[in-house]
Amino acid sequence: MVEPDTMSHIKLVLQYDGTNYAGWQIQANAATIQGHLEEVILKITGERSRVTGAGRTDAGVHALEQVAAFRTNSNLSPDIFMRALNANLPPDIRVMNAVECPEGFHPRYDAKSKTYSYLISGMGAYSVFMQRYSWNMRCQLDRDAMKEAAHYLIGRHDFSSFRASGCSSTHPVREISGIEISEMNTIGFMGFSLDVPLIKISITATAFLRHMVRNIAGTLVDAGREKCPPSRIKEILEARDRRLAGKTAPSGGLFMEKIVY
Amino acid sequence: MVEPDTMSHIKLVLQYDGTNYAGWQIQANAATIQGHLEEVILKITGERSRVTGAGRTDAGVHALEQVAAFRTNSNLSPDIFMRALNANLPPDIRVMNAVECPEGFHPRYDAKSKTYSYLISGMGAYSVFMQRYSWNMRCQLDRDAMKEAAHYLIGRHDFSSFRASGCSSTHPVREISGIEISEMNTIGFMGFSLDVPLIKISITATAFLRHMVRNIAGTLVDAGREKCPPSRIKEILEARDRRLAGKTAPSGGLFMEKIVY
Repeated sequence: MVEPDTMSHIKLVLQYDGTNYAGWQIQANAATIQGHLEEVILKITGERSRVTGAGRTDAGVHALEQVAAFRTNSNLSPDIFMRALNANLPPDIRVMNAVECPEGFHPRYDAKSKTYSYLISGMGAYSVFMQRYSWNMRCQLDRDAMKEAAHYLIGRHDFSSFRASGCSSTHPVREISGIEISEMNTIGFMGFSLDVPLIKISITATAFLRHMVRNIAGTLVDAGREKCPPSRIKEILEARDRRLAGKTAPSGGLFMEKIVY
Repeated sequence: MVEPDTMSHIKLVLQYDGTNYAGWQIQANAATIQGHLEEVILKITGERSRVTGAGRTDAGVHALEQVAAFRTNSNLSPDIFMRALNANLPPDIRVMNAVECPEGFHPRYDAKSKTYSYLISGMGAYSVFMQRYSWNMRCQLDRDAMKEAAHYLIGRHDFSSFRASGCSSTHPVREISGIEISEMNTIGFMGFSLDVPLIKISITATAFLRHMVRNIAGTLVDAGREKCPPSRIKEILEARDRRLAGKTAPSGGLFMEKIVY
């Protein structure tokens, strides 16, 4: 290890299909995004570098845009790093951009906002091309009830009722600046049009608790299925009790979509 | 086995993601679409049935719409068959529709036309979400040259130059009624927009030779890369020599898209 002031600090914008990974965070005996990145950086530079991500996505969760950073003594340019990383990473993990960033930059703490989107497909219809990337629903969902329920979650709240038991955050208060629920009747897929409806729940906040988006998605689906009246969301929030909210929605429907600094 | 005239004949419309399969045709020790269907029908009815498909897609090739048919002594309705099949098939193979069909119906011989689409993505850009479903191209392609080259293939020709060596067809003459080459600058993907260009080559014919679409796609890419002048396509056709055409494009970019009866 060399002193930080002689090292360069590189910011990466990443995209990945999370289906085949045990999530972002490095683990023994499991393929992870962070693990692959650190292994490839070691191969390129001969040094061990810690790669820090803007969010620790769970197993199966995808990223349209994840931001990460690492320090290195190598004097390879960011552009050369990007090419060398992409030449060595599996095809479902990709560096989309690489730039030098200030020494003090932190992908997680410096984010002004992050947007995650959760996809629900089907409502009675099905396409094989959506099963990796959405929660397939057999029944209809009342979109108005979902929108009304979502409304109660906007703002600064104690989200203990939507927090996974293993969450390592020091406090459970988070601020959701917006929840957008949009609908499509057909889905664009690789230039084809699939005759399957889609509901996209996009949630923007400065930071999230563990499983927060998936627990909100599961609860909004309960509202959409009329298992939970929208106004009950207020009580669920106030109770600060994970048992009262809906189940954790499956990981494949979740995309880390955008990070603003 | 019971006499055909006491059996019902069921037509299935299927969709599948071919990535994890060794193709349509049943094989020992390999997961295939036909193999899965026959196994599940045996499980449901207790009878061995032969499932005939409209096209024998290769390993890795996808189907937005494949048509298949089988005979059975079971008096389950087509709708119940569809539900029982879907409850037992893996999530990347799906029966989209099931109906009774006339005794003489043949999914392959009765097709008036079949359309296959081949997808080429990137041209310098890349998305992890396209790698299963398209041929990623690092370089630019001259679309006008590709369209000009395609023009020579339309009509009734001896397609020996575009036929795989293992092709079992009795003769190499096929009639292509249309080749459409369309372009997109961004790709719709599950309600997101990926900033990656796409070229879609759609070929319609009554029937195809083995690897014909992928060999045509490989040759059109050669024209697009200026490795082969468009007018050479005419010579390649006339030479009836597989060595003169381009390489077989990768299977993941190919979709069986539509079958008309």
